[in-house]
This record gives sequence, structure tokens and C-alpha cells, in this order.
Amino acid sequence: MTKIGFIGLGIMGGPMAANLVKAGFDVAGYNRSQAKVERFVEAGGTGAATVAEAVRDRDVIITCLPDSPDVEEMALGDDGVFAHAREGALFIDMSTIQPATARKIAEAGRARGFGVLDAPISGGERGAIEATLSIMVGGEGVEVETARPVFEAMGKTIVHVGPAGAGQTVKAANQLICAVNIQAVAEAIVFLEANSVDPTTAINALSGGLAGSAVLERRAPSMVERNFQPGFRAELHDKDLRILTAAARDAGVTIPLGTAAAQLMAALVAQGDGKLDNTALLKLVEELSGR
Amino acid sequence: MTKIGFIGLGIMGGPMAANLVKAGFDVAGYNRSQAKVERFVEAGGTGAATVAEAVRDRDVIITCLPDSPDVEEMALGDDGVFAHAREGALFIDMSTIQPATARKIAEAGRARGFGVLDAPISGGERGAIEATLSIMVGGEGVEVETARPVFEAMGKTIVHVGPAGAGQTVKAANQLICAVNIQAVAEAIVFLEANSVDPTTAINALSGGLAGSAVLERRAPSMVERNFQPGFRAELHDKDLRILTAAARDAGVTIPLGTAAAQLMAALVAQGDGKLDNTALLKLVEELSGR
Repeated sequence: MTKIGFIGLGIMGGPMAANLVKAGFDVAGYNRSQAKVERFVEAGGTGAATVAEAVRDRDVIITCLPDSPDVEEMALGDDGVFAHAREGALFIDMSTIQPATARKIAEAGRARGFGVLDAPISGGERGAIEATLSIMVGGEGVEVETARPVFEAMGKTIVHVGPAGAGQTVKAANQLICAVNIQAVAEAIVFLEANSVDPTTAINALSGGLAGSAVLERRAPSMVERNFQPGFRAELHDKDLRILTAAARDAGVTIPLGTAAAQLMAALVAQGDGKLDNTALLKLVEELSGR
Repeated sequence: MTKIGFIGLGIMGGPMAANLVKAGFDVAGYNRSQAKVERFVEAGGTGAATVAEAVRDRDVIITCLPDSPDVEEMALGDDGVFAHAREGALFIDMSTIQPATARKIAEAGRARGFGVLDAPISGGERGAIEATLSIMVGGEGVEVETARPVFEAMGKTIVHVGPAGAGQTVKAANQLICAVNIQAVAEAIVFLEANSVDPTTAINALSGGLAGSAVLERRAPSMVERNFQPGFRAELHDKDLRILTAAARDAGVTIPLGTAAAQLMAALVAQGDGKLDNTALLKLVEELSGR
């Protein structure tokens, strides 16, 4: 049986690790705050008090952490995954981080005899709980196949998108499109309402045409109601858009709307609305319009 | 039998008028350039040499013209529709124009005893030919019902979105969302390629999630191939985005991404690419990125 070490039992990592347990894997879970480890033990997992304990003798080690520096330290640090894992183990980072950091970790891991995949996710907390995540995987094909049963216990759509870092690149593109599409719908709703047009009727008329999108179908109704319960918090999307803009600069690509959407999301967070859903961009459009 | 006068037999109006003939309506067609009238006669329509001839004694008069001033002159001018039509006729403008102009025409028409609807369309040349257009209708409910059989001969999705001008407002919102979504996909494709990720694989991975959209599904494949055959020409979308930005300003609404997309579309046209499909925004992203 595949033995898994899971590091980072947060909003996403917690239910993902629990789904691995449910699927029959032997999972040792570690988290900096031990309260989350205890919750994982209640869900049937094995608690680990240290990184070393979570990693030692495991076939697969998964991280699901907040940001690039966290993952880099956890992978490469003196008390990190590569320092404690057995040779030949497969390291899978499922956090959303810089593509450049993912490539650096892959190179360092391979040099020390580990398999390495970057496998960021989309689908939100609900997708993590219901094991319906989309998983965008970068790395060697052989290692992706090894990991596939593990991914299938957590997600529904598993796509190998390219070599090391490609998963993170596709995730960044995903966050670009989502942010821009949300902002477009926010602007359209405020524009419609300012012209006394019922936005729900209008959205129904627009959904079947080229303006149709998952954002318009799934998120516009709660935006019209001003229900900004997350969902996916603005502060997390803000972090992902900082990754996007840095990665675009690294690659020498100019992304005018991606950059503008990143600034608007940052403004939303700066105004204290970072805990709201990312669709709260609508609030910002209203404020900018004095409404 | 409903007698229709159809003014403006261009790329959209030509096939729309022909579909009315096919559906059994008695249609008199007028166009400034008579060559298009001749083509309409070949399609079974009745040719009109003057506006007066197209309009006199008709139950319904439809215009499908390039821009706001054309429609305003055609509706209100000395040799226009209201000057020649019989009292009680229903005037339907299917052009894409300023919501404010649509409201002005509706008010003037009603004062003179006419019914007036604004009914802009989306779905492109193909939708016009195949009678699968989406029609967004502003005006009185009773008149919308009178016009419904006429609309059904030209389109598939007919939605009454509100009072006079509402059709144009919804069309402007449609053009906002389409332009922004196209630009987002253009930025994502260039970003993916610059990072050596195959965009087709990535697009397949993204389509099922919140980044999914009609643009991603229907337009991204030809964008990846750099096939910019129209479709919907950039210069027409540019015109529609000028309507959007003016209407947003009229309504006091700030639309940061809508405005940015309008500027990018204008830049594309300024560079001489106005005859290409609006998805040629991708070319602009590549130029801005020195690729």
C-alpha cells in the first residue's frame, strides 16, 4: 500500500488528506499548528509531530502550503522534505506557487534522487471536500502515472500539462482568466443596474452567446444578490495574481488585463475586504462609480 | 400577412431580410448601394429604390445600420422612416447603437404614434445566415409580442430585457464581456506559450473549471492556430466598444477592464488590423511582449 506523508492540513489540505485516508491510503499528516493534526487524526489519519515523522519512509510526500517561500523552505530546508525522505520517494507540491520556484525545487529534488511533481489545484474548498478538484500536473509522465491513483482520490479532472513548472504556469493562467472574467461580469452588472436594466434577465439573455462563461452562470447570481460569502477569498486570489504578474514578468509577457485585475484585487484586499469572496470585486466597481 | 420594410441589407441585414422572405413575410428591402438590393431581389425579396418606397404602408419597419448617427437620421430625418411610415407602424432598430439614441428615437416615435423597439443582435454573420441570432429587445411588452414572429424568423434566443434602450444596454454589456474575455484568453495563450506549455492541453484542462467560457471553447482553438479570419471584425467590435465606453460615462459607471479592452481593440484597428477577427487581440499581446 502506498504510504503518504501530507504536510499542510489547512482549508484545502485538510479535506484532501482526509479523502486520501477514505480511499484507503496510509497517510501521516503534519501541520505547524497541531490543532489541525488532531482534527486529521479524528478523520482517521495518523498524526505526525514533526516534518521528519511525516516524511520518513513514505512513498509519496505531498505539500499544500500558503506560498512559494513556505514550499521552498519545506522542500529544500535543513529540516525539510528532501532532508528526511527516503531516496526515490515522490514529492508532490499541490500549493499554488511561482512556476520558477517549482522548477527550482524539481531540479534540486531530481539531483538528490527524488521524483518531483507540481500539481496545483482548482475547485475551491468545496472541490477539496467532495474530491472533485481539477489538478494541473507538471513533471515527468512516468511519475504522473505513479501519482494518478493518489490524485484520483482527491480530484476529478487530472491533466498532465507539461514538464516541471507547467502545472503552476497553467494554474497562473487559470487565475488570470478567472479574475478578469469576474471583473468583466462585475462591471457589466453595475453598468446594467445603472441603466435600470434587471441584471438577472440580462444575464439569462447573455449566457447562451459568446459572453457565456462559468463565472456568468455560477457566480453572477450571488453577485447580483451581493452575497460575497466565500467561496474563494479575495486575499487568496490576490496572492495568486501576485504569482501571475511576477511569472509574466519573468517570461517577458505583457498582460494588460491580468495586471489591471491584479491591481483591482489588491485594492479590494487593501480596503479590508480580503476575507470576502473574490466576486466582491463588484463592491469596488460600485465604489469607483460612486454607487 | 405582415408587411415588412427592411433598411440596411449589409453583412447582417442581408441574410436577416432573406430569412424573413423565407419565413413567408412580404419584405421590401432598401439599401443605399443598390447592388445589395439586387442581391435581395434574387433572394426573393421586393426591391425598393427609396426609403419612402420601403416604408410606406408597411406594418413593421426594420433598420440594420452601421452606427448611431445613421439610425438617428434614418428614423428622424426629413426623408426618414417616421416621415414616410403609416401611423401605428412598428419601428424596430436592430443595429447596435447608443442606448441614449435608442431612447431618444423611441420617445420621438411614440410621440408621433409609432411603436418602437430596440432589438440589437449577437451571433455574427453565421447566426444571421442560419437564423440563430440572439435578439435583446427593449421596449413595451405588447409591441415585443407583436414583433415576436418576425424575430423568430431571424433568431433563436429572443429576450425582452426591459424598456426602450434596454436592448442596447444589454448589447453593450455583451460586447464588454466578450472583449474582456477574448483579451484574457489572448493573454493566457501568450503567457502559456512563453513558458513552453502547450496551450491546447492547457485550454482543455481549464475549460471544465471556473475559467471555462464560450470564448475559451469556441475561439481559443483558432487563436492558437493564429487563424484570424472573421468571424466578427475588430473594427466592428471597436465601434461597439466606443458605444459601451460612452454609455458607461453617461451612466456614471467606471469600467476599468471594459475601458482597457476598448483601448486595446482601438490599438489593433489603428495598426491596420481592423478587418481581422476580434480575436486578433492576440497579435497585439504578442507585439507588446516583443514576440
